[in-house]
Amino acid sequence: MTISTTSVVSSKASIGSNVRIGDFTIILDNVIIGDNVSIQSHCLIGQPTPLSDGQPLVIGNDSIIRSHSIFYEGSQFGSQLMTGHRVTVREKIEAGENLQIGTLSDIQGNAKIGNHVRFHSNVHIGQKSIIDDFVWIFPYSVLTNDPHPPSNLLIGVRINKYAVIATMCCILPGVQIGENSLVGAGSLVRKDVEPETVVAGVPAKYICRTSSIRMKDGSNQPAYPWMRHFHRGYPKEITDEWMSIYDT
Amino acid sequence: MTISTTSVVSSKASIGSNVRIGDFTIILDNVIIGDNVSIQSHCLIGQPTPLSDGQPLVIGNDSIIRSHSIFYEGSQFGSQLMTGHRVTVREKIEAGENLQIGTLSDIQGNAKIGNHVRFHSNVHIGQKSIIDDFVWIFPYSVLTNDPHPPSNLLIGVRINKYAVIATMCCILPGVQIGENSLVGAGSLVRKDVEPETVVAGVPAKYICRTSSIRMKDGSNQPAYPWMRHFHRGYPKEITDEWMSIYDT
Amino acid sequence: MTISTTSVVSSKASIGSNVRIGDFTIILDNVIIGDNVSIQSHCLIGQPTPLSDGQPLVIGNDSIIRSHSIFYEGSQFGSQLMTGHRVTVREKIEAGENLQIGTLSDIQGNAKIGNHVRFHSNVHIGQKSIIDDFVWIFPYSVLTNDPHPPSNLLIGVRINKYAVIATMCCILPGVQIGENSLVGAGSLVRKDVEPETVVAGVPAKYICRTSSIRMKDGSNQPAYPWMRHFHRGYPKEITDEWMSIYDT
Repeated sequence: MTISTTSVVSSKASIGSNVRIGDFTIILDNVIIGDNVSIQSHCLIGQPTPLSDGQPLVIGNDSIIRSHSIFYEGSQFGSQLMTGHRVTVREKIEAGENLQIGTLSDIQGNAKIGNHVRFHSNVHIGQKSIIDDFVWIFPYSVLTNDPHPPSNLLIGVRINKYAVIATMCCILPGVQIGENSLVGAGSLVRKDVEPETVVAGVPAKYICRTSSIRMKDGSNQPAYPWMRHFHRGYPKEITDEWMSIYDT
Repeated sequence: MTISTTSVVSSKASIGSNVRIGDFTIILDNVIIGDNVSIQSHCLIGQPTPLSDGQPLVIGNDSIIRSHSIFYEGSQFGSQLMTGHRVTVREKIEAGENLQIGTLSDIQGNAKIGNHVRFHSNVHIGQKSIIDDFVWIFPYSVLTNDPHPPSNLLIGVRINKYAVIATMCCILPGVQIGENSLVGAGSLVRKDVEPETVVAGVPAKYICRTSSIRMKDGSNQPAYPWMRHFHRGYPKEITDEWMSIYDT
Repeated sequence: MTISTTSVVSSKASIGSNVRIGDFTIILDNVIIGDNVSIQSHCLIGQPTPLSDGQPLVIGNDSIIRSHSIFYEGSQFGSQLMTGHRVTVREKIEAGENLQIGTLSDIQGNAKIGNHVRFHSNVHIGQKSIIDDFVWIFPYSVLTNDPHPPSNLLIGVRINKYAVIATMCCILPGVQIGENSLVGAGSLVRKDVEPETVVAGVPAKYICRTSSIRMKDGSNQPAYPWMRHFHRGYPKEITDEWMSIYDT
């Protein structure tokens, strides 16, 4: 256990074994941190809020929270959470294991996130979003929730397994993005997206089946489902299964 | 008064009664903080700049500045300012009371902001913007100012009372957004928007009157003016007036 | 040399003469800082990464790094680097002199950046980008790199001399932006842009020659090349040359 002498750690926080806490980081009371977790410098962990209903922040084993990040109390994360720098994560997030949250991302709270999900930099996840396993969301994309802002009615976006939202997309309230689909960069998505289809544009329209997109690396192999060729950062038992399915 | 022992507070700063200052926060010289203000951890308050003409930063009574925020000297805010985390606010902002600035927002300085204005997360307010009372701006929206970048000519955007800019909009220099209007998500606004109208698209075009949008909560009531149904966070005397006007 | 007593500075770091280091800033081992450099508060400088191949972070003379910024080891910057607040800069950036990086910008690493380049606030530079001298990129614009995300194939964007990317543009992988061209605000650029042309829209299309855009300051002079009229922040020998070329 290496806890910086310049950090401020509450004696009420529950901290696992082999935890590292960086300089100028604050760990508040209502926090449960697993084993082998590294929390870097300048973080604020366990920010109180009445919206947490008193629930603690739970960070699973083997996680890394990079510098300048802020987590509220009342959210829970499985093992192997990995964040970039200066992420902001509010209350009532229920996330599975091996979630990656990129630098500057802003997770507004009150959302469900599956296993092995990837948010790249500067992603904004509105309240009431439901994000299934293995989803990818790329930089500057936003999941909205208010159909006539401002209002008290929040209708979340749902993103199904393996779907990919490319850079700078805006997904309107209540939209469902189908399994294995791809939303092209710069799209405004107003309607549900069918599984295994590509949509793009403002507003987003059907472009083609994902199966018709080919790799641009000279192989001319299918680029989707992306699990055919992209395995970095996933557990071996999962990538072994992908290799057997796609025979690559 | 609770001032963290790890904070760095200038003896030249003027600090009201019942002020809280969090860990690792810096308060510099040219700062006037009202009563009952809470400034959370890791903030930098009163950053000097020659562009301030020596004017102080003034934070009104009953304000909350959340962690990792940065305020320059030379701006002034009425009472009940409330910020999210890691906001950046430069010099020569004149803001009324009860302004809310969401997490990651970047207020570039040299702008006028009315009373009860709401900026959600990651809003960018260019210099020379004029924002009237009760305006709403949603995440990733930008008010620009340079008609042929880069140049020394800055022509600000003007947003009139009760207008709403939805998520991920870009408002071009000199555009005026009319009272009670709505700019739909993902719009690029090149021309003035008439009062009580909805525009959307790239470039934004007239869609309908705001009066024709209905609530999606099953009530089928008009969704605009939003003051009919949305009252959270406003003073009772104001919401009482709204209720009497709209008879809700 | 003014190094705050609340900063944490490695004895292994190489620090030039007349360097200022602000409160709560961390300088790690593998860092070389030139003379007359100011690093403000709450920064993290020299973040280690295996992707740096052991190379140091090099910050040239006369640089200013504003508060809450993060630099990884393994990048190098010429003299007169100037950043806004909370910039994030990863490894393997090779940048020339007098680079300006605006508040909140996120430089993903593995990129080449020329001399006198300007990134305004909240710019995202993907890996493999090549950015030539005197380029301007305005807020919320993103240079992407993955032609079929997620994949291991990264094809960077190339932006040639004096080109301007206005606010909230998304440049797709492998696109080349020609010298002296202008990409209008809110554009999605899928194809190469010819020199001295204006493109705009989603997707971006040819609008006109840059030479046909006139100043809106009443002079009716040509607005491009912008070096005709915009000189702020460049060395005198350069602006003298511009004045002789454009006879202004």
